[in-house]
Formats: sequence, C-alpha cells, structure tokens
Amino acid sequence: MIAELERAEIDELLRAQVVGRIGCHADGVTFVVPVIYAYDGEAFYAYSLEGRKIHMMRSNPRVCFEVDEYDGRGSWRSVIAQGTYEELEGADSERALALLTERFAPRGGERRPRGEGRPVAFRIRIDEVTGRAVRR
Amino acid sequence: MIAELERAEIDELLRAQVVGRIGCHADGVTFVVPVIYAYDGEAFYAYSLEGRKIHMMRSNPRVCFEVDEYDGRGSWRSVIAQGTYEELEGADSERALALLTERFAPRGGERRPRGEGRPVAFRIRIDEVTGRAVRR
Repeated sequence: MIAELERAEIDELLRAQVVGRIGCHADGVTFVVPVIYAYDGEAFYAYSLEGRKIHMMRSNPRVCFEVDEYDGRGSWRSVIAQGTYEELEGADSERALALLTERFAPRGGERRPRGEGRPVAFRIRIDEVTGRAVRR
Repeated sequence: MIAELERAEIDELLRAQVVGRIGCHADGVTFVVPVIYAYDGEAFYAYSLEGRKIHMMRSNPRVCFEVDEYDGRGSWRSVIAQGTYEELEGADSERALALLTERFAPRGGERRPRGEGRPVAFRIRIDEVTGRAVRR
C-alpha cells in the first residue's frame, strides 16, 4: 500500500505542484511555513519577505522541504527533501525571480511578495530527497 | 494585503481542511510530514504507523503543526501552531480514532493507517496558534 517513489516520479510531482512547506529550526523552535516555489531539478527557489522564517534559516540553514498531493479519499503522494538554505543576491536573485515568474505566468505572472519588509530570494539546495505514495 | 486571522477564522480553517503538516526536530534534523487530522479546538489528532516521525516526536515533543489553503492564483490562508506531542493509549486512543473516523466517514470511513508497523494514536496539543491571510 506504501510505495517509494522513483526519482523521476519525485521530479514529476515537484514540477506539478506549486506549494511546498519549509521546515526550519532555530533556538529550540521548529517552524513550518508554506511557500510558492519553482524547481530546477537541484533546488527549490522562492522569494519571501524578510521575517521569521528567513531569520531562522539564516541561523540554521539545514532545512526540510515538503510537497504533497492528497486525493481527498485516502491516497497520497509526498516528497520530503533535506536541504541547505542559500540566500541569493544580484544575478542569482534575478534568475530565481525569472524562474518563479515563468512558472506562474499562466496563473497571473510575477510572484514578487507583497507586504512590509525586504524581499529576499533564496534557494534550498537538495541534499537528499525521498518520495512516497500511499494508495487505498 | 497580509491580514492576521482571528481565532474564529483559524478554527474555521482547521475544521475545513483535512491535511496538515507536522514539523519535528531531533538530532539536528528537521522533518516535515503530512498527516490526515481531526481537530477538537484544543488539539490535532492523528493516527500513524510507528516510524521516523513518531520516533522524532518522542525524542522532542515540541513540534509545529501547519495547515494551509491556496487558491491557485496567489491568495492564501495558513495556520501555524506550536504544540506538544502526546501519545495516546487505551480509551484516549479509541477516542482519537473515533474523531478521525467521524470526520472521514463522508470520505469512506475509518482512517486506520495501512502498511507495516504498529499504529500509534497521538495528539498535538496547541500551545500557541497564529493564522494569516494573503489576498491578491
């Protein structure tokens, strides 16, 4: 009933989904936060306002990235990656924004974050990734 | 563009959604894993096979529980709770299973986990909870 996903199936799920969750940990606190992401086969790219999760990932760059798909009746696919947070500047930051904009163009274009605070582009480079499917 | 949710809005979202993500941390590793849950206003209830997340939560019961809803066009609601893992035995375990079964009856009934390993019922008691809405 539980199957491990092959890397090609993992990549397919990561390219199909748009919302992932970052798990980070600093000062004894674990924090899970959803983000819109792009994926290039090696890393997740996101753009966020400077705030709690950015501060935590700067403090401890070893993070988890999770993506799932639930069919509403008991069947799942999920991917869980361990990765390393890297903040992006200059051309790297522009490339991340381009990846996100390209991905979300069909849904209304640019994904620059809204609200107060400085926008920060970052990637989470995959160190290890596993995927599972549960079928009922 | 970003609004804090009132507790009534948080409760509404938590009762409407069925998939949450647990963030746990032990031995330097942060792990995020999706679960089907029930919610009684004070805690999240779930039933899982004994495995990595159960071992990590036993080791460090301070966990995060996250629920989100994304409309596909840039608007979000999300709830992030800090909580404490408590394993359930006997009558408490049966009550958790009853809550989950009641919740999922319209979707096909009992949510006993499938696969190898001992099923473990647990709750995550909320210590602190916040919610946000981002509208575009």
